[in-house]
Amino acid sequence: MLTDVDAVSDMMEKAALEANATPITKAFHRFQPQGVSGVVVIQESHLSIHTWPETGYAAMDFYTCGDHTDPWAACEYAAKQLGAKTMLTTEVKRGIESANGRFTHVVTTDHDVHELAKIA
Amino acid sequence: MLTDVDAVSDMMEKAALEANATPITKAFHRFQPQGVSGVVVIQESHLSIHTWPETGYAAMDFYTCGDHTDPWAACEYAAKQLGAKTMLTTEVKRGIESANGRFTHVVTTDHDVHELAKIA
Repeated sequence: MLTDVDAVSDMMEKAALEANATPITKAFHRFQPQGVSGVVVIQESHLSIHTWPETGYAAMDFYTCGDHTDPWAACEYAAKQLGAKTMLTTEVKRGIESANGRFTHVVTTDHDVHELAKIA
Repeated sequence: MLTDVDAVSDMMEKAALEANATPITKAFHRFQPQGVSGVVVIQESHLSIHTWPETGYAAMDFYTCGDHTDPWAACEYAAKQLGAKTMLTTEVKRGIESANGRFTHVVTTDHDVHELAKIA
C-alpha cells in the first residue's frame, strides 16, 4: 500500500470524504525505488501524505477548516487503510485571531499515541 | 498577492528552490470570492499555503527532508514575498525512529514570533 501511488491517492481522497470535506484537486508522486508523496487540496484546506515503505512509516497532515469537518475521521480512516499498528498524533489549532489583530496557533495535543492493533 | 493564485503558486515554487528543494508537481486553487490554497510537492516532501485575504492571514507549511534543504530559507522568502509584518513559526521534527522501531515527532520551537517590519 505504501508504494502504490494510485492506491494512496485514492485512499487520501476517500479520507477527505470521511472528514466531510470536499476534494478540489490533488497531486501525487511515486518515488523510485519506493515511497509516495501527495496532497489532496480540499475546500477546507488540505490532506497530505508521505510514505517510507522501507521503514513502514507514513507522515500525514489533515488540515481542515469549518465546523462541518472532522479531520480525526480522516486520520483514523487513513491509519486503518494503511494497516497502521500505532499512530502518533499532534493537533494544532491554527489561525486564531487575537485581540491585537495578530494570529496565533496552539499545539493542543502532543504525542498522543494510539494503539491500533485492534482496528488494523 | 493573497488573492492571485498564479502569483502564489509561482512564489511557493520559488520558495522551494530557495530551500534547495526540487519541485515535482503542484496543485493550486483560487476560491471565490477570495483566498488561495495550494501545495508544491517536492522531492523532499511538500510546501503548502492557505490564504485569507480578508484578514491578511496565510498559513504555510515547509516540510522538507534531507540535509541539503533549508526549510527556513523558503519560509523567510515566502513571508517576505507576501509582505508579512509578523510571522509565527513552530518547528516539528518528524519521523524520528526510536529504539523500539516506533516513530515519533518533536515540536521543537513553539510560538516563535518574528517581527518582519524591516524586510516587508
